[in-house]
Amino acid sequence: MSKRKIVLAFSGGLDTSYALVSLREQGWEVLTANVDTGGLHSGEGDVVRARAEELGSARHFVIDAREELYARVVTYAVKANYLRNGGYPSCVGAERLVQAEKVVQCALDNGADAIAHGSTGAGADHVRYDSVIRALAPQLEIITPIRDERLTREFERDFLRQHGFETSDKVTTYSINEGLIGTSIGGKETYGSWDYLPEEAWESTKSIKDAPEDGVELILAFEKGEVTSATTLDGSPIEGTGPDAPNYAILRSLNTLAAEHGVGRGIHMGSTMVGNLARVGFEAPGMLTLIAAHRELERLTLSNRQQATKLQLGNTYGDLLHEAVYYDPILDDFRAFLDSSQTRVTGEVRIRLQKGNVIPLGSRSPYSLLDAATRQGVVYGYGSSLWTGEQARAYAHMYAIPGAIQKNAGPQDK
Amino acid sequence: MSKRKIVLAFSGGLDTSYALVSLREQGWEVLTANVDTGGLHSGEGDVVRARAEELGSARHFVIDAREELYARVVTYAVKANYLRNGGYPSCVGAERLVQAEKVVQCALDNGADAIAHGSTGAGADHVRYDSVIRALAPQLEIITPIRDERLTREFERDFLRQHGFETSDKVTTYSINEGLIGTSIGGKETYGSWDYLPEEAWESTKSIKDAPEDGVELILAFEKGEVTSATTLDGSPIEGTGPDAPNYAILRSLNTLAAEHGVGRGIHMGSTMVGNLARVGFEAPGMLTLIAAHRELERLTLSNRQQATKLQLGNTYGDLLHEAVYYDPILDDFRAFLDSSQTRVTGEVRIRLQKGNVIPLGSRSPYSLLDAATRQGVVYGYGSSLWTGEQARAYAHMYAIPGAIQKNAGPQDK
Amino acid sequence: MSKRKIVLAFSGGLDTSYALVSLREQGWEVLTANVDTGGLHSGEGDVVRARAEELGSARHFVIDAREELYARVVTYAVKANYLRNGGYPSCVGAERLVQAEKVVQCALDNGADAIAHGSTGAGADHVRYDSVIRALAPQLEIITPIRDERLTREFERDFLRQHGFETSDKVTTYSINEGLIGTSIGGKETYGSWDYLPEEAWESTKSIKDAPEDGVELILAFEKGEVTSATTLDGSPIEGTGPDAPNYAILRSLNTLAAEHGVGRGIHMGSTMVGNLARVGFEAPGMLTLIAAHRELERLTLSNRQQATKLQLGNTYGDLLHEAVYYDPILDDFRAFLDSSQTRVTGEVRIRLQKGNVIPLGSRSPYSLLDAATRQGVVYGYGSSLWTGEQARAYAHMYAIPGAIQKNAGPQDK
Amino acid sequence: MSKRKIVLAFSGGLDTSYALVSLREQGWEVLTANVDTGGLHSGEGDVVRARAEELGSARHFVIDAREELYARVVTYAVKANYLRNGGYPSCVGAERLVQAEKVVQCALDNGADAIAHGSTGAGADHVRYDSVIRALAPQLEIITPIRDERLTREFERDFLRQHGFETSDKVTTYSINEGLIGTSIGGKETYGSWDYLPEEAWESTKSIKDAPEDGVELILAFEKGEVTSATTLDGSPIEGTGPDAPNYAILRSLNTLAAEHGVGRGIHMGSTMVGNLARVGFEAPGMLTLIAAHRELERLTLSNRQQATKLQLGNTYGDLLHEAVYYDPILDDFRAFLDSSQTRVTGEVRIRLQKGNVIPLGSRSPYSLLDAATRQGVVYGYGSSLWTGEQARAYAHMYAIPGAIQKNAGPQDK
Repeated sequence: MSKRKIVLAFSGGLDTSYALVSLREQGWEVLTANVDTGGLHSGEGDVVRARAEELGSARHFVIDAREELYARVVTYAVKANYLRNGGYPSCVGAERLVQAEKVVQCALDNGADAIAHGSTGAGADHVRYDSVIRALAPQLEIITPIRDERLTREFERDFLRQHGFETSDKVTTYSINEGLIGTSIGGKETYGSWDYLPEEAWESTKSIKDAPEDGVELILAFEKGEVTSATTLDGSPIEGTGPDAPNYAILRSLNTLAAEHGVGRGIHMGSTMVGNLARVGFEAPGMLTLIAAHRELERLTLSNRQQATKLQLGNTYGDLLHEAVYYDPILDDFRAFLDSSQTRVTGEVRIRLQKGNVIPLGSRSPYSLLDAATRQGVVYGYGSSLWTGEQARAYAHMYAIPGAIQKNAGPQDK
Repeated sequence: MSKRKIVLAFSGGLDTSYALVSLREQGWEVLTANVDTGGLHSGEGDVVRARAEELGSARHFVIDAREELYARVVTYAVKANYLRNGGYPSCVGAERLVQAEKVVQCALDNGADAIAHGSTGAGADHVRYDSVIRALAPQLEIITPIRDERLTREFERDFLRQHGFETSDKVTTYSINEGLIGTSIGGKETYGSWDYLPEEAWESTKSIKDAPEDGVELILAFEKGEVTSATTLDGSPIEGTGPDAPNYAILRSLNTLAAEHGVGRGIHMGSTMVGNLARVGFEAPGMLTLIAAHRELERLTLSNRQQATKLQLGNTYGDLLHEAVYYDPILDDFRAFLDSSQTRVTGEVRIRLQKGNVIPLGSRSPYSLLDAATRQGVVYGYGSSLWTGEQARAYAHMYAIPGAIQKNAGPQDK
Repeated sequence: MSKRKIVLAFSGGLDTSYALVSLREQGWEVLTANVDTGGLHSGEGDVVRARAEELGSARHFVIDAREELYARVVTYAVKANYLRNGGYPSCVGAERLVQAEKVVQCALDNGADAIAHGSTGAGADHVRYDSVIRALAPQLEIITPIRDERLTREFERDFLRQHGFETSDKVTTYSINEGLIGTSIGGKETYGSWDYLPEEAWESTKSIKDAPEDGVELILAFEKGEVTSATTLDGSPIEGTGPDAPNYAILRSLNTLAAEHGVGRGIHMGSTMVGNLARVGFEAPGMLTLIAAHRELERLTLSNRQQATKLQLGNTYGDLLHEAVYYDPILDDFRAFLDSSQTRVTGEVRIRLQKGNVIPLGSRSPYSLLDAATRQGVVYGYGSSLWTGEQARAYAHMYAIPGAIQKNAGPQDK
Repeated sequence: MSKRKIVLAFSGGLDTSYALVSLREQGWEVLTANVDTGGLHSGEGDVVRARAEELGSARHFVIDAREELYARVVTYAVKANYLRNGGYPSCVGAERLVQAEKVVQCALDNGADAIAHGSTGAGADHVRYDSVIRALAPQLEIITPIRDERLTREFERDFLRQHGFETSDKVTTYSINEGLIGTSIGGKETYGSWDYLPEEAWESTKSIKDAPEDGVELILAFEKGEVTSATTLDGSPIEGTGPDAPNYAILRSLNTLAAEHGVGRGIHMGSTMVGNLARVGFEAPGMLTLIAAHRELERLTLSNRQQATKLQLGNTYGDLLHEAVYYDPILDDFRAFLDSSQTRVTGEVRIRLQKGNVIPLGSRSPYSLLDAATRQGVVYGYGSSLWTGEQARAYAHMYAIPGAIQKNAGPQDK
């Protein structure tokens, strides 16, 4: 009789290394899937593969999900200008969505009976994974030893050593999670609310002090809300971008470039799905730059009502994704709204990155409302061919009426 | 028969100087009211008074509205974290509200028959003024020569000279409007959308380049959402603040201090009440600092639902004030909501001002949700005494059900 | 030299009759356009044409806008379940939009120099008309004598008689405005807030007392939120509907049928665009029936989040149309949202019309969430194969945590 | 050693009867608490007490929670005009909140070690109970045998018989849950979506057919949004109400009176907290009458913005209560908003109850916006002393500008 087959979402870290050996020991044929959402540096994929094979993976898959993550998640995060709790360009929830979907597909393609992931029960990632698996493949068993048995890292290390596998003794000071969208950083300062992360905790961003004094100016071009090029003032594409680059190239390059200028650091603080307040450092130089530029172009091309409604719906959209509400059809409705709102968000934005700041310097667009008003006769300043002084006066007169009625409603002797 | 009496909102500028002489010529007894909402530097009030008297004011009033502006407008703008179109700490609308109310009160106190203001018909200020006058004193006539007759500045200058009054020939490059809340700056770059204001256009803020490399750290304390102290790390109040200072002292001092660190510049772009798109530079170092610190404290003490709902209602509140909707009773309801939401927003925030950045470093509060979770048993990281691994697993199982149902609704053969 | 040409929106009533003669007298070549949005009964179009010709119309156009009104306005009002101030199926604003667009098109097609309409300045219709004309054909002059000169009906009657035209002396007790979407009824009772309209004021609806005791049952079928058939229980299309009928046939037939059962009466009360509170009777049997049925089908097929968000956005959408905000691009975004939300709103609803009530009896759909839950294992009542007792208990345990933290935040000695 | 003590929420039904005996057998000293939220008819409390004593309750408490339920839940449901999914005056969630709080208080007062309730794990009630207990008394154990062991009613019946207790063999066709706010009715028709409840399933409401032809007219008076009297047209209080009656008397009397007129029936359909779609019949004659009248008074006294914002926030408030989110501080903020919004909701509403319909006939208030507009000069119909024809024309001109700009933005050759 053939063994039962399981696909394990595998990162090469301690939790998933433990899971791989432990599942084998329980009699599973373990396939490993390493989904790259932008966190693998050059050569790291091979290290992960070698580790998987060393630990006994029956077959190892490296799944590049960067283009899909960008197309499905990043573009809508930018369209929505989504910043969780007003500051955090979070897409962790959606990153897990894409990872879990890829693992499910891998399990279905390989006829697996079960899926395993190394999530603990302390955060929300385990809920995200399970939400995807249950919706897409309810027939598959879900195996999550670290969560279910609340294993400690010490226990896992001992187990691996007892089975003859080396594990790093390095106790890392900061827990780092890197991806295309951003890097999260946890450590002793973030367990409380008062202390800031020290300089050595940050991975990619320069400090404000070390960033070049003069900064750099860029032009970002957008079509219907999606960035299409990033160039220097003389029109040259910034390094790593260009017509043949993958869809996520501009974000990736901005991550590097903006980090040089001290852009992208922050500490997010907000309640999690399970009710506690989490605090976590992050670096997201590219996303913060893209969103700042995109929002500036929206100010030029969208009505106030569009901007106000987008803010509200976009925040709800982002929060739902963050909270693993992936399959409520409201998400499709929000995307339809966001897509429609971007019809006119085409044009260019001039930005300066300097000493931690992202400064929108100017913008232009064929859909510019400023140009449209000028064509209709608005002249900024003293007058306008659109109305006479008497018309302005009459307008103020009429505009004041509802307030005058409301102010003077109620018993008249008061 | 005694002359009819009019109160003129008087700033000493060309428009109101013209109005004063012109109204006198039409037979009015003209009283002038100069309302200070923070824009008068030391000695400037006397200059305005001298000019009013020179031009024939029957009686000149200087009305200090700074405490009232702060109490009624600034505190709610901070409670709401209001940034118009996501970036502009605008309270111009509300500043006009307070000014107009003071002028109306002055007119009623002095038995005037009419009120005059020097607004043009090009922007929204004339609507703001008229909205207040009509609601509070509908019996008073409103006289607005600049708007009604669309006078040019050249015409006004000639008129004054013909009546024997000097006028400055200085043609200012930038139109500046200064107040407690912020300074607005208009000029040729802001008439289009592509150009940024040059260094010389900014009034009070240092450039990022000229700001001190190391920045400065402060501690801001809040009680129920209102700032109560601003101190250096060793506990000394920053200059100009302290127990005996007026309510607006911290904002005023932050305006000075944060400006030194390059904080507070921006260009606002957004549609006006009359439909055209306006672009205007601003400097608001104090407000941007206060809001950044206040929002950080809210992240520590408010639920996610509170933050999301506050953002939406607070933006609507600020937009209505901006758009001269002063007397809709919904404003009272919004204030009741905002006040209630601040019950727990008490504590301290540590911030760094550096090279244009306002960086919240940490925060603490007796109402900290992080501390509350810890008391209930949450331990950040691997586990928690609040739930077992099996409970976490069951929660994920249950949480996934609605999505699984929604994902699998619809014809089953598809 | 040829005369200048004007297109007059012409209904045959006193205001537009006056305008026609008066404009001719001022030297205009007057073309008349009678746009039918469902208010013309059989033969009435000819009466209007004859009157236009009698009064000197150079050319008379009858424009049937019912299909367009239905497709562009009614379908979205139903998708949005729009009831103004929670009760009034108003689409008057949007009805004017369609009428004005047709008149503009007629003016452009005929090379006119101007457009005239008979609106008074008392309500919002003149704003609606002008908003369309200015956006679509800003080069055309707008002539509106009744509004601009505040003419009285007596003046107009005298003028017409002096020019040799008969006018009805009938002083109507109630002012009636009829259209496909509904009929509005104004009269002395509606000028105050305390009195109800008497039986004789209602045009089409039976009183509850006179409606048949047993009512009638119908089945309404919808596809993606649009009604596609209305049948009796045995499957026969109700009178006036069927495959070859125009798109608005079901609404028209429901207007007749539901009116027989006392359905559709109400008095709307709400603030107008110009700030006063208006009260107006209405009869809208068809719209109230359609919306009640549509909403029931949404309860079966949409998530709670979709229903809650639709309610909010749909109300805003309807209010903006009502308030003549026709060209803000946010409307396209709302329509995109609404269209997306209707993807699954396909199925049938069983309703009973009885003695003024519209009672949804049941519904079914291939996208039924109830059926989807059953397929996933939910059994209504004691148990479910979806979870165990322990899982339910764990879920309650976890679900309670955020509340326990929030409840217990704050100083602990209190 | 003394026994451990537990308080059991006891209704006298099968589930809680089983729980009482079973807990005793496990060695607990069982105290029983019967919380009356309006569902106990005359004498029923004694029957429940007798049953509790028969089954071995160590001490039985009858807790009258009607005044508190009314003050804390009903008044806000009316202020919010809350109808879940647009039709269901649900306060079941909040009813459980009040019950659970009373049981917790009873447990604390009596030094109990634990609390038991008879909830199953199929619905949301067990989550509601646990949410209250965990927040208010986390030190108490929660015992829920029916949920945790998924017991069947047959098992419970057998167990009781084996212990010598009679149980009714009656298999009820419909599951009825009665309270002050309303009665819910489940049965085989409500397990699917297509069938309506038959006549015999309804508890208190007359059928439309059997209701008196002519209906009845009442006047409901409100002060700051709370109903203060219900009288016939001649001013007599309706039966069961009056100055000395408890706060909930009007609701209770309206339940009886409106039911006589066929008012109050409906079938609610909506997704539950645990993701499945539930359908349940309800009778809520009093709440539907109160809300219809209250909403009419709001139309007379509130601005459109207040009504629109209240609808949205009120729905969110009601939904959160329904979903057991009892301790998020946002609820306090919502209540502050709602209370503020009711400042002017004082006056009288004339309603007719007839053949299932609740018809608001008229309303009046010292805060009437209609009266306020009249005082300011608005005359309904042709004119108004508030503005001239030219002012109306100018207003339309100005109002149209934003739309004209928006419509004409974009490339001009298109």
